[in-house]
Amino acid sequence: MPADDAKRRLLITAGPTYEPIDAVRFIGNRSSGRLGSSLADHAADADWCVTLLLGPNAILPSDPRVKVVRFHSCRDLEAALDEQLPIHDTLVMAAAVADYRPATEEINLQGKRRRTAGDLSIHLESTPDLLAGCSQQARGNQLLVGFALEPRERLMESARRKLKKKNIDLIVANALETMDSDTIEATLLGNPDRGLETELRTPGEITKADFADWLLGQLGPLTDRRKAVMTESTTNG
Amino acid sequence: MPADDAKRRLLITAGPTYEPIDAVRFIGNRSSGRLGSSLADHAADADWCVTLLLGPNAILPSDPRVKVVRFHSCRDLEAALDEQLPIHDTLVMAAAVADYRPATEEINLQGKRRRTAGDLSIHLESTPDLLAGCSQQARGNQLLVGFALEPRERLMESARRKLKKKNIDLIVANALETMDSDTIEATLLGNPDRGLETELRTPGEITKADFADWLLGQLGPLTDRRKAVMTESTTNG
Repeated sequence: MPADDAKRRLLITAGPTYEPIDAVRFIGNRSSGRLGSSLADHAADADWCVTLLLGPNAILPSDPRVKVVRFHSCRDLEAALDEQLPIHDTLVMAAAVADYRPATEEINLQGKRRRTAGDLSIHLESTPDLLAGCSQQARGNQLLVGFALEPRERLMESARRKLKKKNIDLIVANALETMDSDTIEATLLGNPDRGLETELRTPGEITKADFADWLLGQLGPLTDRRKAVMTESTTNG
Repeated sequence: MPADDAKRRLLITAGPTYEPIDAVRFIGNRSSGRLGSSLADHAADADWCVTLLLGPNAILPSDPRVKVVRFHSCRDLEAALDEQLPIHDTLVMAAAVADYRPATEEINLQGKRRRTAGDLSIHLESTPDLLAGCSQQARGNQLLVGFALEPRERLMESARRKLKKKNIDLIVANALETMDSDTIEATLLGNPDRGLETELRTPGEITKADFADWLLGQLGPLTDRRKAVMTESTTNG
């Protein structure tokens, strides 16, 4: 067995999506991709095999062992996930994917909308829920991890709802208020429906680098356990 | 007279505006600010006194003599122009300012819009025409320069219309098709209503660095002429 097959294989998404309005304009968001990029660096350092799907203007990881694939829109990211998910053990979805994008009939990629007098509206459509889609495609031995970034007051309620709705294994709940901060205070919640009762809080506010190590410390054994279950059932089957 | 008073004073705007939808999302555009930033560097090198108003994610100039002031939205840039225009001789408006922004009632800067089922629309309002506003405030001895970035087929017609509508001195017409390119092929058009019959084409496609020198070569003498007229009329008056 080649050495890389024994390694844990981690797929991370990070950064914003830019949803085109025309050849020049887009709807974007302020995600810097810092957290996901730092996570990729730390995972490579901890000997995971890492692929990072990285949005526009997001910060590049510094570790050359991280394989970086760029995306721009939700549609690009969806295609990249389709391709990459099957060859990884664990997915951490740290990208800030747009909930809405300009509806197809609004988009003019060849040109640039003319300024007209007065007001106008852009018609938006919901984007597909990429993580829920991954959950439908995933093998039972893959571990799927999401993020919930919401105002503190409705954070935990919102995180638990997302966990069920997307049918994923774990969610990192962190408060919208800390978005541009260098530190993070988060809770890792497991999905009881998928056999995970995890409820772990970071030791107070920690740096994003320390958070990366903390999260990988949790994901490592869980990834191994899932892989082991599969190997066992394959052996038994 | 202090040395700096004798220098030509150049105000440049560069990069995109990001118009907030909520605390996280915005409408942006793909301007890199590369051209404006390069122009600032070359002007500092040619001994102009340079202030650069620079948008989010735009490329920083490398010359430490360039004074950089950051803006995010059209509203920020408007305030910065109000403050900076009176103390400069020449304005080059290379920023890609949004034509439309989410209308005030759409914006929720404290929170994040919830994902709801189905489609939605964002109501947009026109932004003020900042360059036309500068023209109304400017002294007669200031030189105002704009850009027209349009598909090649309607470029010159559109550039001439902008020149009149904004009532500025000069406009650089360049084709939308070259937006992400390292090179530029442009035409500098003067406004006959403001005494400028200029119609100069770059010598073919040139690098953005060469374009900066080419444009400054045109703007230098025109800036001096304006300043001289004013000094003369002040002396005579």
